[in-house]
Amino acid sequence: MNKRKKEILNAVKDDLEAIEKALQHHLQPHLELVSQIAHHILFSGGKRLRPLLTVLSARLCRYTGSFDKTLSCVFEYLHAATLLHDDIVDAATLRRGKPVAHLTWENSTVVLVGDFLLARSLSIAAQTGLPEIVEIIAYITENMSQGEIRQMLNKNRVDLTEAEYLEVIQAKTAVLFQGACRASALIAKALPDEEAALANYGYNLGLAFQMADDLLDYTTDSAVLGKEPGADLKEGKVTLPVIYALKKADAKTRLQMESIIINKDFNTEDFETLRLFLKKYKGIEYTIKQATQYAANAKDALAIFEPSPTKQILIDVADYALLRKT
Amino acid sequence: MNKRKKEILNAVKDDLEAIEKALQHHLQPHLELVSQIAHHILFSGGKRLRPLLTVLSARLCRYTGSFDKTLSCVFEYLHAATLLHDDIVDAATLRRGKPVAHLTWENSTVVLVGDFLLARSLSIAAQTGLPEIVEIIAYITENMSQGEIRQMLNKNRVDLTEAEYLEVIQAKTAVLFQGACRASALIAKALPDEEAALANYGYNLGLAFQMADDLLDYTTDSAVLGKEPGADLKEGKVTLPVIYALKKADAKTRLQMESIIINKDFNTEDFETLRLFLKKYKGIEYTIKQATQYAANAKDALAIFEPSPTKQILIDVADYALLRKT
Repeated sequence: MNKRKKEILNAVKDDLEAIEKALQHHLQPHLELVSQIAHHILFSGGKRLRPLLTVLSARLCRYTGSFDKTLSCVFEYLHAATLLHDDIVDAATLRRGKPVAHLTWENSTVVLVGDFLLARSLSIAAQTGLPEIVEIIAYITENMSQGEIRQMLNKNRVDLTEAEYLEVIQAKTAVLFQGACRASALIAKALPDEEAALANYGYNLGLAFQMADDLLDYTTDSAVLGKEPGADLKEGKVTLPVIYALKKADAKTRLQMESIIINKDFNTEDFETLRLFLKKYKGIEYTIKQATQYAANAKDALAIFEPSPTKQILIDVADYALLRKT
Repeated sequence: MNKRKKEILNAVKDDLEAIEKALQHHLQPHLELVSQIAHHILFSGGKRLRPLLTVLSARLCRYTGSFDKTLSCVFEYLHAATLLHDDIVDAATLRRGKPVAHLTWENSTVVLVGDFLLARSLSIAAQTGLPEIVEIIAYITENMSQGEIRQMLNKNRVDLTEAEYLEVIQAKTAVLFQGACRASALIAKALPDEEAALANYGYNLGLAFQMADDLLDYTTDSAVLGKEPGADLKEGKVTLPVIYALKKADAKTRLQMESIIINKDFNTEDFETLRLFLKKYKGIEYTIKQATQYAANAKDALAIFEPSPTKQILIDVADYALLRKT
């Protein structure tokens, strides 16, 4: 674990413990099977980044109540629900080094447990009595479902543009991060500027986070990553490092890259060849540059807040998003 | 079409037209594929019973605005979302005589369009500004997902009890009918008694409706029904006519029935044999009796309302639930 991550984790230790407790407490399944599947997806080493953003954002807006921990569950449950539905979509096999739920249980059951988690999110949102928070959840769900469909339609498209890629990660990831931060401003009755600033922070952080995540597929060992090497490509997901390198490569190299991408049975050697091209044509470098820019936007968005330990953690989280290895 | 159904349809003709328009108007998909799948499930001959209950309930509570049509979409979208998710669960092949969505499109896409419809429901609920309505949706979604899982766990269980059956249809059907009626009372700012009465009406009507629906599998030609004969049994669904007949049959007949139920490849002759036993051991008769009782409870619940044409339609709907052939 790098030093930065250790420092962040140390600073939010109590929050993470409170979040774990809240996630357990608010799940309330009636059926053992629901409990099992929900636990499999919820309690298997997630980073709790989204609920943590909720708790920190609330504190930044001077919130002193205890509902922030409850509210934070909304975004982890939503995240888990979409993981359950998306892993079916992606026909993924591993997540965080463990077999994905739909390999252990029937597809159909997994879908329904996803629905259950979505319902739990809603229940908590209804408790706030704030229609804006329900609107946030509706907006997130609408974006995530359509973003995921868009991603499916983009499968194996070697002509995918950066703009089309952005459209997908915005809908899939940024909108959820944005909601996790903005909802806190709402329960804290923050000023409109503060609400907008946190929404902006979350949105940009989400983009940076997803770009860094997409990069990991090409920069990290599969053992560390907990999924197959080149898993994104095997699922037909064309991400920014690839899009950029394809654009910059000469015609001959481009054809060579495309044949590796389109051939789902590529071997380790093919994958290494592709990685060399991504490096050579600056796909990696460009993605890091873009992610760094979005992380910088995220930090800039916090400018209206006075310096404070909480603000510093949010800044550190934005930096960490770029450095993480898993 | 029988006379009663014709009369009801005539009385609610304008409402049904307004509901169709609202369903089209509020769908707002961004992607053509979402639009296609949503249309496939939403505009293929549904009875619009749930939105109709919303509109009629609002009118019964003296509601004069126009939001009732919008609100009514919530319950049809929720219904359609669960149909999309449930048809995957059930591995069904036909619905309303047409191939189910997941045979035409990928499972995963169908799941995501279900999520999209759920999100649209939520968006509309948020527009009401009433947290109670969001709570209703959360409660419906939680019940429907767990009810469907319960139904899966009950698959092929020849020892299923009537109480266990009731638990499933309550969660799967009654809670949605209840919500469709109760939400109207809320937007109409009805008295607490009226809200409770409508909730009660919807709940009991839902039970009657589902029992009558389960009966159709044994009493109606498959051509009329638009799905395979004995489809419920082929999906392992053990419903009230079967539960009751199994309980009342002598040991030898019971074994014979069980072997037909457990053997999914039963032929027409086997199915006819089973139907005869359901009749002989009064499984059909008992189910009709129970459905009639719940329909009567539904009508009784409306006692606190003054006689009016709208009240009469709601009463007629409860009677019709028992008579319907499809």
